[in-house]
Amino acid sequence: MARAKKTMDGNTAAAWVSYPFSEVAAIFPITPSSVMAELTDEWAANGKKNLFGQEVKVVEMQSEGGAAGALHGSLASGALTTTYTASQGLLLMIPNLYKIAGEMLPAVLNVSARAISTHALSIFGDHSDVMACRQTGFALLCSNDAQEVMDLGAVAHLSAIKGRVPFIHFFDGFRTSHEISKIEVWDDEDLRDMLDFDAVDAFRKSSMNPERPILRGTAQNPDIFFQASEASNRFYMALPALVQEYMDKVNAKIGTNYKLFNYYGAPDAERVIIAMGSVCDTIEETIDYLNARGEKVGLLKVRLYRPFSVEHFLKELPASAKKIAVLDRTKEPGSIGEPLYLDVCAAFAGKKDAPVIVNGRYGLGSKDTIPSHILSVYENLKADAPKANFTISIVDDVTNLSLPVTEDIDTAPEGTISCKFWGLGSDGTVGANKNSIKIIGDNTDMYAQAYFSYDSKKSGGITTSHLRFGKKPIKSTYLIDKADFVACHNQSYVYKYDMIGDIKPGGTFLLNTVWKESELDEKLPGEMKAYIANNNINFYIVDGIEIARELGLGNRINMVLQAAFFKLANIIPIDDAVKYMKAAVEKTYGAKGDKVVKMNCDAIDRGVSSAKKVNVPESWKNAKAEAPVKKDVPEFIEKILIPINSLKGDKLPVSTFMGREDGHLAMGSSA
Amino acid sequence: MARAKKTMDGNTAAAWVSYPFSEVAAIFPITPSSVMAELTDEWAANGKKNLFGQEVKVVEMQSEGGAAGALHGSLASGALTTTYTASQGLLLMIPNLYKIAGEMLPAVLNVSARAISTHALSIFGDHSDVMACRQTGFALLCSNDAQEVMDLGAVAHLSAIKGRVPFIHFFDGFRTSHEISKIEVWDDEDLRDMLDFDAVDAFRKSSMNPERPILRGTAQNPDIFFQASEASNRFYMALPALVQEYMDKVNAKIGTNYKLFNYYGAPDAERVIIAMGSVCDTIEETIDYLNARGEKVGLLKVRLYRPFSVEHFLKELPASAKKIAVLDRTKEPGSIGEPLYLDVCAAFAGKKDAPVIVNGRYGLGSKDTIPSHILSVYENLKADAPKANFTISIVDDVTNLSLPVTEDIDTAPEGTISCKFWGLGSDGTVGANKNSIKIIGDNTDMYAQAYFSYDSKKSGGITTSHLRFGKKPIKSTYLIDKADFVACHNQSYVYKYDMIGDIKPGGTFLLNTVWKESELDEKLPGEMKAYIANNNINFYIVDGIEIARELGLGNRINMVLQAAFFKLANIIPIDDAVKYMKAAVEKTYGAKGDKVVKMNCDAIDRGVSSAKKVNVPESWKNAKAEAPVKKDVPEFIEKILIPINSLKGDKLPVSTFMGREDGHLAMGSSA
Repeated sequence: MARAKKTMDGNTAAAWVSYPFSEVAAIFPITPSSVMAELTDEWAANGKKNLFGQEVKVVEMQSEGGAAGALHGSLASGALTTTYTASQGLLLMIPNLYKIAGEMLPAVLNVSARAISTHALSIFGDHSDVMACRQTGFALLCSNDAQEVMDLGAVAHLSAIKGRVPFIHFFDGFRTSHEISKIEVWDDEDLRDMLDFDAVDAFRKSSMNPERPILRGTAQNPDIFFQASEASNRFYMALPALVQEYMDKVNAKIGTNYKLFNYYGAPDAERVIIAMGSVCDTIEETIDYLNARGEKVGLLKVRLYRPFSVEHFLKELPASAKKIAVLDRTKEPGSIGEPLYLDVCAAFAGKKDAPVIVNGRYGLGSKDTIPSHILSVYENLKADAPKANFTISIVDDVTNLSLPVTEDIDTAPEGTISCKFWGLGSDGTVGANKNSIKIIGDNTDMYAQAYFSYDSKKSGGITTSHLRFGKKPIKSTYLIDKADFVACHNQSYVYKYDMIGDIKPGGTFLLNTVWKESELDEKLPGEMKAYIANNNINFYIVDGIEIARELGLGNRINMVLQAAFFKLANIIPIDDAVKYMKAAVEKTYGAKGDKVVKMNCDAIDRGVSSAKKVNVPESWKNAKAEAPVKKDVPEFIEKILIPINSLKGDKLPVSTFMGREDGHLAMGSSA
Repeated sequence: MARAKKTMDGNTAAAWVSYPFSEVAAIFPITPSSVMAELTDEWAANGKKNLFGQEVKVVEMQSEGGAAGALHGSLASGALTTTYTASQGLLLMIPNLYKIAGEMLPAVLNVSARAISTHALSIFGDHSDVMACRQTGFALLCSNDAQEVMDLGAVAHLSAIKGRVPFIHFFDGFRTSHEISKIEVWDDEDLRDMLDFDAVDAFRKSSMNPERPILRGTAQNPDIFFQASEASNRFYMALPALVQEYMDKVNAKIGTNYKLFNYYGAPDAERVIIAMGSVCDTIEETIDYLNARGEKVGLLKVRLYRPFSVEHFLKELPASAKKIAVLDRTKEPGSIGEPLYLDVCAAFAGKKDAPVIVNGRYGLGSKDTIPSHILSVYENLKADAPKANFTISIVDDVTNLSLPVTEDIDTAPEGTISCKFWGLGSDGTVGANKNSIKIIGDNTDMYAQAYFSYDSKKSGGITTSHLRFGKKPIKSTYLIDKADFVACHNQSYVYKYDMIGDIKPGGTFLLNTVWKESELDEKLPGEMKAYIANNNINFYIVDGIEIARELGLGNRINMVLQAAFFKLANIIPIDDAVKYMKAAVEKTYGAKGDKVVKMNCDAIDRGVSSAKKVNVPESWKNAKAEAPVKKDVPEFIEKILIPINSLKGDKLPVSTFMGREDGHLAMGSSA
């Protein structure tokens, strides 16, 4: 069966697959899950039908505690019910999760996994929230990217209904929930085809109904509670095989090879990583790169985390594996190791010739994990006694747990084009880029990926857009730091950020500026000029502000710059690009009248024609960086705030936070 | 230092040791923790001072969620703050626990661990609640009986303050929280002596205060969240040694030998159980019994569960251990094994010659664990491949996980006297027994233990009181099923319950009845008569109702029966007993005037003199049980309700609950 392709983010994929199976959605919005609930609400309002011919009834409660109560009550009354949540929202649902699982109700929670507030709040992604639910009796199924969210979301719903065990279907907050990519989408008929309607019927018949009264929610004394609690064992024992059965149905339909655990890499790999979540795609990309240069490494992806089937796990792991690194995207202070590591140790307990197993933490609060970090994990496994309890992606100079980066590698498959855009929150850059990726994704057979990095200020802060295009599926689930094309939409950034250090030698840099070419030598900082000259950067300038003003578009520069991007990045023929951009303008602004449409179409034409290539003078090669002005500021400003504001916070070592382990900061930093 | 001895329950011990270290208690009552908050409130109202010369400020909130918020806020403002909770109450605190730990605030939660509602509600004890918090960054310290609650409660508070890591100090709901025993209590001066006042001062100085403003509760972006989160590692790494340091201070003061892990049993044991909680006392009693008959078994008690120090763990476990059974008092459906088991597997990961490790569940929802069940665990470890993932104390005839009981053993140390009382909820039996145990505990050098088993109906249901007395410390943390003395305070029970099956041959049975001796042959059921005659039971009757009526006490029979118990059980000389009972009457009723005092004292004299020994006829030896009347009732009534109502629910196998795995029951059972 060939499914239709659409360009969408992971949240949209989750809502897409969840809607047909749901009768009620009990919601309370929390970042980064809100989009799932919003879409469900919107579709229901537009009359979209589920597999039972109804619109989903969306009920917004007063908190996640209320949403969990409504979820439980709705399920008890026989309605297939879902919710979407994350982080503290999920924590507030925990008491109800035990009840829902204990009463064997087929709930599915779609969770865009997010960090839990500890020393500080983080709205970003890791697995702390879902891991806090691993003991509730819910099954946990992990999807690693939007395509898997679409595919495995169906498995979660189908298995919950048939298996009578509720599911948390989770995927990485932001990296998966908000990354836009081109994926294949389900047709409802295929989902209907796989659904066991007898099981739906049995669920409905076992619900609370005045016409066939039963008693639920009783109190049990010590005499029978334990026995009654063991009575449900067989449903958990049967679940892994049932989930595989539904994965097989999916595989048969769409040609995938989903298993409870999927191995990727050299069949005879000695060094293997075990992980869950979006990092798996990055690991696969790294494996392709490393194995191509003669190494033998692999990855075991955990999809069904609960129930954890030791049998399937051991079967899938190659017997050649001698050394294993288990990566956990959560931190449990005081534990011997994080949850997946503990499970892997238990899976091997008592096994002869068990491999060496070490554990590492990564990606807390959306910390970016790049192939070079994965390489350091595989390098660590080369040691006779690999370092255990390690961290990656940071420099831990206090407890010295971090692995060093041994080599900076570029693992993106040949032909992938990486483009990075620097904009100001709400300046239209992100919207234009979403538009660009849809144009390329929907009109060509290229794969496309877009990720937008905001800080949690959301509006008015800096935004960077990370776009990738290519002939092969894009597995780079990390920010772009090796770009073919970089655009700076805000001239003032040249003094603040190291934007061009990310451009590959021979790449392209587009600067939106009011400066004339003749002024650049004077205006641009020395290190920028030197990098451009020494790395053969194709340097373009465009004055989007002047063009927009001339056309009557005010400060709306995004159309000009989008056109300039299509012209310079040359991903698709420029004539096609112009045609698609104009069609999009027609669609977006058609209702506002011909004049608005024309202004925007003119902006496209001007954007294509106005970007001017700068003749880079030889002298720039020797341009020197100005000595930084040493300001007399408090230690806290110098050591923390200035690097953060220059976007160098990523590189701050752990020691920066000594004396501030409890998360406190000094006051008065705005001044 | 010799500490004073008092007879109290575990909740009282927890409140006793927590009060001196606390400035604020933010509370919301939940069974079985409520007593801790009530006592703290009462003491504060009476002007009791903490170590800082203040009364504890007790704040009752609208829920445990609110209590957790108040706890966090109070700590942030520099007040040493505690709370007392359990079960769902603790779950509602989880979001705040992460914050409190992340901000390194020295909270101590005293938790009387209780089951979480799943297929049914249970107000009874297990570790599901505390185990749901093991990932929050709190330290977890376990006490196994009221004495340890008193002793280790101090370690929790002292370590939290000095170590800047918050603690959950937990002990078994009901079995420890409500068991009354004679223990040594702290004097405030000793606690003051051990407290690091500099650390208290540093905590206060780091609090939120307008005079030295700092910023807390910020949001961190992906650039620094991970590094900042790793900055607190060293406090967790240092904590085990710090806890041991405080245990050593306690040990030096009171002559104990508390360690992070304590081993008990044969120094060369090959079979070892690893466990936490009140079951450890039962295991120790079983070990004494088994090792005395030539076996070599042992127990490793886990006290500091988080942070889990692998180093201390491995050091304490004897090298001779070849086979290990890890007992968990919680159930996590879908996991490879429960939490302590996973930790033990991880502790041994990569170790050469690791022992065989198997896992078992026990005691869910206060399911009683007796020495015969512990024996079955040790017997299982004799097998070449011991059964893993087992259960004890139940018969699992569905998934066949339960271990069979191989032998019914009586492990109570010689000289222990066990007494069991059958009463009706609110009939005064429990109050009289509490009185009796205080009399014996406070006036003799005997150890004493009392546990009261209600069902969750609390009033009007059946109550059984389990009292033990002896020259040696009493470790029998299980219900009495081998009694020296059994009293039935309610004549109608002879038809309903198997009361005398628990009496040891040669033991004593006291029946409160209006029947005359001549009527007994006709009135008593055949199986009771046969058991009495064939087991040489000393059978006494007393008509407490008639005596109480004659004396003008109405239906208040408890004083008569208490006196009869002292006379017949002969635990202390009867003249002393009468003296103490009368002194207690004077204390309790003195204010009500001489007449009331005299009536009660007369009741004591009559109780001592009126119990009449029954001459058991030879013919009773052959008395036959009446054939049970087969009633035509629904299968659910016959299979579940009738056994439960006869107090035989304990023996119902798992298969009884097939088709009811979701916890539902049929309606109409009252009819």
